[in-house]
Amino acid sequence: MSTSLAIGEDVDIETLMTAIGAAAKDAAATLAHAPTQEKDKALKAAAEAIRRHAGAIMAANREDLAAARARNLSAALLDRLELTPARIEAMAQGLLDIAALKDPVGDVIAQWERPNGLKIERVRTPLGVIGIIYESRPNVTADAGALCLKAGNAAILRGGTEARRSNRAIHDCLIEGLKAAGLPEAAIQLLPTQDRAAVGYMLKMAGVIDVIVPRGGKSLVERVQKEASVPVFAHLEGICHVYVDKSADLALARKIAVNAKMRRTGVCGAMETLLVDKAALATHLVPLMDDLIAAGCEVRADEACRAIDKRLLPASEADWDTEYLAAILAVKAVDGVAGAIDHIRRHGSGHTESILAEDAAAVARFLTEVDSAIVMHNASTQFADGGEFGMGAEIGISTGKMHARGPVGVEQLTSFKYIVRGHGQTRP
Amino acid sequence: MSTSLAIGEDVDIETLMTAIGAAAKDAAATLAHAPTQEKDKALKAAAEAIRRHAGAIMAANREDLAAARARNLSAALLDRLELTPARIEAMAQGLLDIAALKDPVGDVIAQWERPNGLKIERVRTPLGVIGIIYESRPNVTADAGALCLKAGNAAILRGGTEARRSNRAIHDCLIEGLKAAGLPEAAIQLLPTQDRAAVGYMLKMAGVIDVIVPRGGKSLVERVQKEASVPVFAHLEGICHVYVDKSADLALARKIAVNAKMRRTGVCGAMETLLVDKAALATHLVPLMDDLIAAGCEVRADEACRAIDKRLLPASEADWDTEYLAAILAVKAVDGVAGAIDHIRRHGSGHTESILAEDAAAVARFLTEVDSAIVMHNASTQFADGGEFGMGAEIGISTGKMHARGPVGVEQLTSFKYIVRGHGQTRP
Repeated sequence: MSTSLAIGEDVDIETLMTAIGAAAKDAAATLAHAPTQEKDKALKAAAEAIRRHAGAIMAANREDLAAARARNLSAALLDRLELTPARIEAMAQGLLDIAALKDPVGDVIAQWERPNGLKIERVRTPLGVIGIIYESRPNVTADAGALCLKAGNAAILRGGTEARRSNRAIHDCLIEGLKAAGLPEAAIQLLPTQDRAAVGYMLKMAGVIDVIVPRGGKSLVERVQKEASVPVFAHLEGICHVYVDKSADLALARKIAVNAKMRRTGVCGAMETLLVDKAALATHLVPLMDDLIAAGCEVRADEACRAIDKRLLPASEADWDTEYLAAILAVKAVDGVAGAIDHIRRHGSGHTESILAEDAAAVARFLTEVDSAIVMHNASTQFADGGEFGMGAEIGISTGKMHARGPVGVEQLTSFKYIVRGHGQTRP
Repeated sequence: MSTSLAIGEDVDIETLMTAIGAAAKDAAATLAHAPTQEKDKALKAAAEAIRRHAGAIMAANREDLAAARARNLSAALLDRLELTPARIEAMAQGLLDIAALKDPVGDVIAQWERPNGLKIERVRTPLGVIGIIYESRPNVTADAGALCLKAGNAAILRGGTEARRSNRAIHDCLIEGLKAAGLPEAAIQLLPTQDRAAVGYMLKMAGVIDVIVPRGGKSLVERVQKEASVPVFAHLEGICHVYVDKSADLALARKIAVNAKMRRTGVCGAMETLLVDKAALATHLVPLMDDLIAAGCEVRADEACRAIDKRLLPASEADWDTEYLAAILAVKAVDGVAGAIDHIRRHGSGHTESILAEDAAAVARFLTEVDSAIVMHNASTQFADGGEFGMGAEIGISTGKMHARGPVGVEQLTSFKYIVRGHGQTRP
């Protein structure tokens, strides 16, 4: 792991990261029992600083944008990178919203008493140190740093190179907030280097970083999941399925299918594959396709569906495993709920699946047997979102089954410990 | 990863482990929604099989013992390896106890309704596939397999070479139980090879094995934690502290100190370091030492303590970081509760620490600020055990902060998913 890539005159990555890690652990020890009001004070002061320094943030962002244009980066990336007064205000408001959330630390999750009189409580604690590795959206600096802080964790942020000036300007505001509340500045650190070796180092900092959250495209998440020896909260992709059972109410199914696919095609909760019960093909397929095609969706279907609706393009095997994040949909006929469950087991990504049905037995089977983070009945997969779940802000959605599954909000950024209260008990 | 260590004529480790992994995943998909009564039926039938085949198990164990003696393995190892009729009956009873536990799968952990009418439930699900890597105790085969099964998980067991015949005989009984209940035999698989490459392979089976639980000595746990790319539930060591505050009731402290150290010195919850408030040295130290020395404990202490009690041996820096698992205790004088917290932060292993005190402020500070899986007040650290916590059997104790912390029982071997029930909601 030793490297001698110089950053300044005589600081190599290992020395730098060791210092950052030690500072984060020290800060985490303080944050772990920082009063709620101090953390909230820091968040509110940071929001004020963002409003007050909006001009400086915009200026830094203009430099980032100019550099990105000079490098001919894509329009989509430029859009993600660009800050506007409205986006800056949304960032400030986001900090205030997080300040308004309930502090999860200290919550008694469970409590019981043993026959010997020992009183046991399971109490929420912070996780410790959280590493966030993200790409071009500068708002992640504020959102992720604030969520970690609210849950009593220290954050180590590593943003995208293209956004580094914007991130730095936003981070300065977070530091102002921490200072105003008397909390350690190392509570939210932004890596002072864009050296990719620092990312590799972060991924191996077991014992220092408790969890890594990658925020960005599939290639970033893939690298993090592959290389990290630290636990990761992430989803690689959201190949979300909607299954239309023969018992589905057609009007409801039409409404939900269009929303699940077309409301926003680029989000991880967007439907990518529509599974239609073979027993519903004659009645449901054409009306469903009418709406989707009218909404501008390209449909790729299996032969059973194409035999009924000639407008559909042929699907290849690869379509069942593709997250389009675009106005394209794969459609397949399946043998009832069992066929849907089987298809999802083989091709799903464990993110979000929805059954549209009125038959209670089919619904119960789908909700029980589909092993995804979120399973829905008669609802749009686009609701797969921490905010829509009522969790407040989320740092992402996890498809892992360990610790955090589904939307990752402040509560999911905590651990717990047991507090055992006795009056002199010894074990026989 | 490719290896060609032949086991049979043409089966290499990779082929073997891939097949075992696929069978486990298939079994897990069935177990995930197996009715409680089927799982319990399998456990009860396995218990009966163990009683019925006690003779065969004893015969297999005698062969293991003979081979172990021929290899001059230690007396401690031989004791762990040896089965007696009483130990076999305890194993059968253990299966019945696990059958009697509440099935965690399907438990609704939380539920709420959103303003748009969506009803959200967080429901317990199995984790999936659990790998257990253990050493010489054959009873782990039954205990670990049964706990995994109860929580709806498939288990892949890899026992110690010295216990392989005993493990095989016990595993045969588990299979009888699974068959009697009509559950897949691959629900509990015992590796058919002792090739160490298979362990290495297991540790990297991310995407197949959801979590690895090592059961054994420090070197095993260390290897697993170091090499695994799969999440691990474990504790490397239990350097448990008892802190005696100046406000401690002396009679209570004497009773607890002896129990915490001497009840069983070889368990992970045994006290290894006693921290004594400097303000309590004059009053508490000598009586505490009287009892411990009378109970046969060797005491290694810092200079402040030795100045008061000449019987104490000198401690070196290494003593503060040593898990003796023996009748040896490190004793140190600290500056009140702050000094104790600081010492534990630097030398603790995150397992279990107890404060003995009557001063409510000192107690609250200790319980809040000490970041260990279990923190106690006026109780013996030897209570750090799933059974003592009322969780039923435990598969181990975890000092990690992810997912499972503290005793790992059936509930900790589960994940959860979100079930969202709607009536046609689309996201605006």
